Amino acid sequence: MTDEPMVEVKKIAVLGGTGKEGKGLAYRWAKAGLEVVIGSRLVEKANTAADELNEKIADPEKFVKGMDNDAAARWCDVAVLTVPFAAHVEMVSALRDAVAGKILIDVTVPLVPPKVTKVQMPAAGSAAQEAQQILGEATPVVAAFQNISYDHLLNDEEVDCDVLVCGTGKAARTVVIGLVEKAGMKGWDGGVIENSVVVEGLTSILIGLNKQFEGRAAGIKITGLPR
Amino acid sequence: MTDEPMVEVKKIAVLGGTGKEGKGLAYRWAKAGLEVVIGSRLVEKANTAADELNEKIADPEKFVKGMDNDAAARWCDVAVLTVPFAAHVEMVSALRDAVAGKILIDVTVPLVPPKVTKVQMPAAGSAAQEAQQILGEATPVVAAFQNISYDHLLNDEEVDCDVLVCGTGKAARTVVIGLVEKAGMKGWDGGVIENSVVVEGLTSILIGLNKQFEGRAAGIKITGLPR
Repeated sequence: MTDEPMVEVKKIAVLGGTGKEGKGLAYRWAKAGLEVVIGSRLVEKANTAADELNEKIADPEKFVKGMDNDAAARWCDVAVLTVPFAAHVEMVSALRDAVAGKILIDVTVPLVPPKVTKVQMPAAGSAAQEAQQILGEATPVVAAFQNISYDHLLNDEEVDCDVLVCGTGKAARTVVIGLVEKAGMKGWDGGVIENSVVVEGLTSILIGLNKQFEGRAAGIKITGLPR
Repeated sequence: MTDEPMVEVKKIAVLGGTGKEGKGLAYRWAKAGLEVVIGSRLVEKANTAADELNEKIADPEKFVKGMDNDAAARWCDVAVLTVPFAAHVEMVSALRDAVAGKILIDVTVPLVPPKVTKVQMPAAGSAAQEAQQILGEATPVVAAFQNISYDHLLNDEEVDCDVLVCGTGKAARTVVIGLVEKAGMKGWDGGVIENSVVVEGLTSILIGLNKQFEGRAAGIKITGLPR
């Protein structure tokens, strides 16, 4: 958890990555030339999702693999967690040893049904802070990608939404901003992990706006600064 | 605190309004033809700020008045609170009776120096929720205008930042969205008052981005929806 620059990221594991969020990110990173593994509780489910992406990418040089979550977490340089909030504590706890010393990108939004348009954070302050508490200092947690519309990722559409990156340590945030750009979006350093409440909570506001306008792709862009 | 439509707002009091935030908003609303009073602890300070705006507006039909905060709060249809966070609890408590039954727009950002780039909310969850707790059900509190660059308001420049409006009751939020538009910006219904943590906290992220890019006007725009 220092501020030293880190080595280039080559291997990304998208844990709990068989949903549309996980597949969308895995697809973008694989196309960008990173080695990507989709993780799942069941390796068969991971393989099915990977096969789906490989068919779509149709490039043997950009082959996505499936693994169980633990193996995927041990294999990678950077782990990305895309699980429903209900599974968050259990999943992070189970992965504690496997991700130790790596960056964990936490995509979790702590939505509490049925009131998903109301910000309702866990006791730790946010899902990312909850993960950081569980993982301890050895593993910097960075919150990112909570506000994007995942349909766009898989459909090769431009994502008209910036990504605010909040997390433990500037070095880790810088690595994640690089991965945001590889996935075809603009990333901004949103500061310390305590700021992740803003980014996670913004998702409830965007869901509310989508409901009001019968839209699906409400997002945000940072204005007033050089892009 | 019902969802019934409210009467048109004609009289706005900007309480603690002698700073650049308060003057900027008062200036825009006066120019838009609303009756505007600047409130301050000392009526002399309020008058000085009002005089400054009247000189700038140079239209006797659009005359801004000064009053002490209590008188301004009793006079208005909608009260706008622009005080430093350190004065927030004391100020809201002092105004409790004077604003009863009116909408209070809370512009307060709970910045805690020296770490103003780190989100640090009060125990109530946000400044707006703190105000709502103090004022009780008779007075809907709506959070707005925390993310805009106030220099732009007084300089007649376009504000390249949307305003997310979070607060108690859809009727009150709708009134405030109307006032956002009268001030020359685009307002969005950001939902319940619990969501104000996002909008208040976003200010710390924007301050951090301004520092990184040596800018002054970082803001956000909502994307992906009809404007």
